Amino acid sequence: MKARIGIIGTGWVGTSVAFSTLLAGHARELWLYDQRGAVAEGEAMDLSDGAAFYPRCTVSAVPLAQMREADIVVLAAGRNGKPDESRLDLLRDNARIAAGMGRALAGFGGIVIVVTNPVDVLTRVVAAAAGLPPERVIGTGTMLDTARLRERLAGHLKVSPTSVHAQVVGEHGDSSVMLWSGANVGGVPLRDWPGWPADEEPTLAGHVRRAAYDVIQRKGATNHAIGLVTAELIGCIVNDERRLLPVSRVQQGACGLRGMALSLPSLVGAGGAVQVMEPAMDAAEREALAASAVVLERAFASLAG
Amino acid sequence: MKARIGIIGTGWVGTSVAFSTLLAGHARELWLYDQRGAVAEGEAMDLSDGAAFYPRCTVSAVPLAQMREADIVVLAAGRNGKPDESRLDLLRDNARIAAGMGRALAGFGGIVIVVTNPVDVLTRVVAAAAGLPPERVIGTGTMLDTARLRERLAGHLKVSPTSVHAQVVGEHGDSSVMLWSGANVGGVPLRDWPGWPADEEPTLAGHVRRAAYDVIQRKGATNHAIGLVTAELIGCIVNDERRLLPVSRVQQGACGLRGMALSLPSLVGAGGAVQVMEPAMDAAEREALAASAVVLERAFASLAG
Amino acid sequence: MKARIGIIGTGWVGTSVAFSTLLAGHARELWLYDQRGAVAEGEAMDLSDGAAFYPRCTVSAVPLAQMREADIVVLAAGRNGKPDESRLDLLRDNARIAAGMGRALAGFGGIVIVVTNPVDVLTRVVAAAAGLPPERVIGTGTMLDTARLRERLAGHLKVSPTSVHAQVVGEHGDSSVMLWSGANVGGVPLRDWPGWPADEEPTLAGHVRRAAYDVIQRKGATNHAIGLVTAELIGCIVNDERRLLPVSRVQQGACGLRGMALSLPSLVGAGGAVQVMEPAMDAAEREALAASAVVLERAFASLAG
Amino acid sequence: MKARIGIIGTGWVGTSVAFSTLLAGHARELWLYDQRGAVAEGEAMDLSDGAAFYPRCTVSAVPLAQMREADIVVLAAGRNGKPDESRLDLLRDNARIAAGMGRALAGFGGIVIVVTNPVDVLTRVVAAAAGLPPERVIGTGTMLDTARLRERLAGHLKVSPTSVHAQVVGEHGDSSVMLWSGANVGGVPLRDWPGWPADEEPTLAGHVRRAAYDVIQRKGATNHAIGLVTAELIGCIVNDERRLLPVSRVQQGACGLRGMALSLPSLVGAGGAVQVMEPAMDAAEREALAASAVVLERAFASLAG
Repeated sequence: MKARIGIIGTGWVGTSVAFSTLLAGHARELWLYDQRGAVAEGEAMDLSDGAAFYPRCTVSAVPLAQMREADIVVLAAGRNGKPDESRLDLLRDNARIAAGMGRALAGFGGIVIVVTNPVDVLTRVVAAAAGLPPERVIGTGTMLDTARLRERLAGHLKVSPTSVHAQVVGEHGDSSVMLWSGANVGGVPLRDWPGWPADEEPTLAGHVRRAAYDVIQRKGATNHAIGLVTAELIGCIVNDERRLLPVSRVQQGACGLRGMALSLPSLVGAGGAVQVMEPAMDAAEREALAASAVVLERAFASLAG
Repeated sequence: MKARIGIIGTGWVGTSVAFSTLLAGHARELWLYDQRGAVAEGEAMDLSDGAAFYPRCTVSAVPLAQMREADIVVLAAGRNGKPDESRLDLLRDNARIAAGMGRALAGFGGIVIVVTNPVDVLTRVVAAAAGLPPERVIGTGTMLDTARLRERLAGHLKVSPTSVHAQVVGEHGDSSVMLWSGANVGGVPLRDWPGWPADEEPTLAGHVRRAAYDVIQRKGATNHAIGLVTAELIGCIVNDERRLLPVSRVQQGACGLRGMALSLPSLVGAGGAVQVMEPAMDAAEREALAASAVVLERAFASLAG
Repeated sequence: MKARIGIIGTGWVGTSVAFSTLLAGHARELWLYDQRGAVAEGEAMDLSDGAAFYPRCTVSAVPLAQMREADIVVLAAGRNGKPDESRLDLLRDNARIAAGMGRALAGFGGIVIVVTNPVDVLTRVVAAAAGLPPERVIGTGTMLDTARLRERLAGHLKVSPTSVHAQVVGEHGDSSVMLWSGANVGGVPLRDWPGWPADEEPTLAGHVRRAAYDVIQRKGATNHAIGLVTAELIGCIVNDERRLLPVSRVQQGACGLRGMALSLPSLVGAGGAVQVMEPAMDAAEREALAASAVVLERAFASLAG
Repeated sequence: MKARIGIIGTGWVGTSVAFSTLLAGHARELWLYDQRGAVAEGEAMDLSDGAAFYPRCTVSAVPLAQMREADIVVLAAGRNGKPDESRLDLLRDNARIAAGMGRALAGFGGIVIVVTNPVDVLTRVVAAAAGLPPERVIGTGTMLDTARLRERLAGHLKVSPTSVHAQVVGEHGDSSVMLWSGANVGGVPLRDWPGWPADEEPTLAGHVRRAAYDVIQRKGATNHAIGLVTAELIGCIVNDERRLLPVSRVQQGACGLRGMALSLPSLVGAGGAVQVMEPAMDAAEREALAASAVVLERAFASLAG
């Protein structure tokens, strides 16, 4: 079941989402919108020129209002931080943009995927502004952190990333929580793996948390991996796959959390992130998750300041 | 890195392996051999006629001797059981065929994949007859049982099979061992899954063990699923993926087992099943694995009778 | 847009269509029916066991009546010829089966694909019995002959089959017509290709026409290539690709033909073989096409005898 | 047979080539080099973070000297034009860069793919500077123009682009030559297609020629389509597909051309663009090709000025 996919914001990230989605063949129609109308048009033309090389899909620039008729809308609009401003200024500006987009999607019948950072706060902002149920406003959350963790574990253990089952939950950001205790590699608990250096887990966690900074410092942005992750999430919805993915949504009681949006393993299908599951966690991980929730609660509260 | 793949035996199973391998794009050259030379020729011609629909690969019938030049040889030769004969008669006949093929592959530099049943005993027979190191003679083992278990769990829980991480080890047969204690679904331990009926595990295990009989009773053989499984295993070797797969090989100490071939999670890459890992098991599972090893030891001993 | 695909007849050909369709990911639900109910059940179970290795799709055995709710129904039922019977006896038996299936599909709202041989006569029989418009009853026709011609030309010229643009039209059978005059290889007319031996065209045509016999003589049937071809046709309909394919349908005036079903380049999309195009032909090719139509007209007339 | 692919220049175009190549699965190792070392590093890190979503490949930033050990090197380095400079200034600067890279690749044993514009002149410059035989220095040439023409024809005729067989030859630029006379759609000559407006061919050609300008005017560059085209070309080499592709290389007599590089249908396989074929052309097309060659000869001569 291919879908009409809309992307709001055709900067580095939105464009990468568009390209990955086309190649994965999830869209029947791909709609692009950007405040800079000509850029969205140019992207649509450039992508259309390659139509011979991906499954059939029409790509076009559309007015914002048309997004309401999409099956899935990806929100990738927002600005990057400037050297001389506070992190809070950026948060406020992007939250204002996200709230506007959310209001424009009030009554929308499909699924909204939030990609813009800080993704957890903006997921909550969009859900509130759009008045949509929590399962239909999904942030990419820690899907990317999870991909990075699995990739690094795979490299360390010299096994395929597809055999590494490990998850990151909580904030997509500095307070993210690596679930070491329940991680396993092809049926072998990670901490039982011969030679696994459990004392290096904090270092490895630090690498994963710093990955985005490391990339941004070098090329000014991250876009490829988040584009691939978002296309994967889109495919899971479009094909009603009902996979468990660590995505962000407003929580309604799982792990004792309520009101804030953050990532927990969630069953994702045609109806969105329809069910949140509680992962296996040890005491330290539970504590870290609670701390992550506090960080996000404070960030959201700061918007009202 | 595409490979020269040889298939010995072009009955239902060998042909299904050929077809799945072609569509997956793992082979640069696909070589077919069957005692009934014309059948192998006909299969090669029929498969070649569809060349426009799979990645480039030449398919041809070859003499048995040419198999020694392949990168991977799949052993799918053997006969099915007859209504009026004992299971032991079948075992002896297929073991004789497998031993012959093994001797023909003495000094072979590639990987042998054994598919013919009883796959564990024949894996041991081939390894001995060919004089090859244990990591280079791999039986598909419980890969198929694992696929069946995951499929049934997915259906029961209404989640995607890709989110179900559960394994079957031991014999590919009546003494196979489902590893319930370590199974998890997207990071949630199976036995913590809301509403999981742990008391129905034995029933579910029975369904998985009986699956082949259920299919054979209806259509006379099983071929599609084992074809897909074998192609997956081939891809893991060809692309040196280093995934952990529950495959059969002669054991050299893992889980205290030595000498017999049975399935345990093994790291599979270009060099074969290069490392056997010990999965998480509770006491009952350990006991069941030991019992499965005894069954296989007896079956092998009966060949000498 | 994935579809509900029904397959009537789960012998060698129907099963191969099922397998190819699953791997291509065209179906959301795959329904199997066979007079031998247990066989259809066994095939559905075997195919389901491999679900981890193809895009999400449920496979089940269904009653014949349910086929009316499918989006596409593939008719692969029929029997093979026996050594001691006339070709006409086979035609009459399969026509009777096809007519019965056609009547069962009266008022059907989807597309029927006829695969059983003789495919052109049966396409006409089904269209008449079902009372469906000609664009919605499609025989695989010369798609397979075309694949074989392109494959052989590619082998002869040592180029990729994807660069060979050559078509076979008319009957899927002894009177098929190779369109040499309009064939081209990557923009170069075939007959201008350096060293092209135009005097060997009849020999090459003979090889293509004899291909099915050559395979059947060796393995008793053909199934892989026709399975792949049919899956390709299904994909073209499911994705509304509007490709030009040499398929069989009841003709309504193209090339001066009317009433009989045979293959001509046809625009195939969600609505079926919606438009028949006249290919470039020289005088000899026009004459051969007319002769092929006469052969088919006679075969159909013989049914009334 | 996967390959070691090197990309020189990780701006918009080189990065898009990298991404498309990874997703297509053509590379075993992907090496990135850029004068701005940190950018190449950042791209490699960002691409690696998505490793779970494409076939196994390691991505790394490497020193320029390591490119000599690649199987294929893509040259995507160069700068864009500035508003206030002449086209010749840009040509001279990029030619100087290309010559430097060519000299760095003297004695290289693999294939060089030139993407930077003006691609035909730079293909000649690189071939000369590297001292490599003409079949091993390939410009993407009119592959992109051909994709654009097929896409626009498909949209106009409402058929799939895969059924449109039409080519553009000559310069990748204002003097490109659309081969209308030999174009066909699924076996039907384009000019015989019902309702084909032959008098609008010049308008349509203008659209194709202007496509890059139209995109650049809107988004400042083109990258997606050229990335996909280049990945297609890479795949054709890596898999030794021997397809006929309209690529640029130094000509040695085909169509009476010698010395300059421009695009003609060429047989592309593991050895590069190993054979140039003469396409069907009418008198006007021959003349236009000759004129295109003159344009390119003059541009090259201007470098010496």
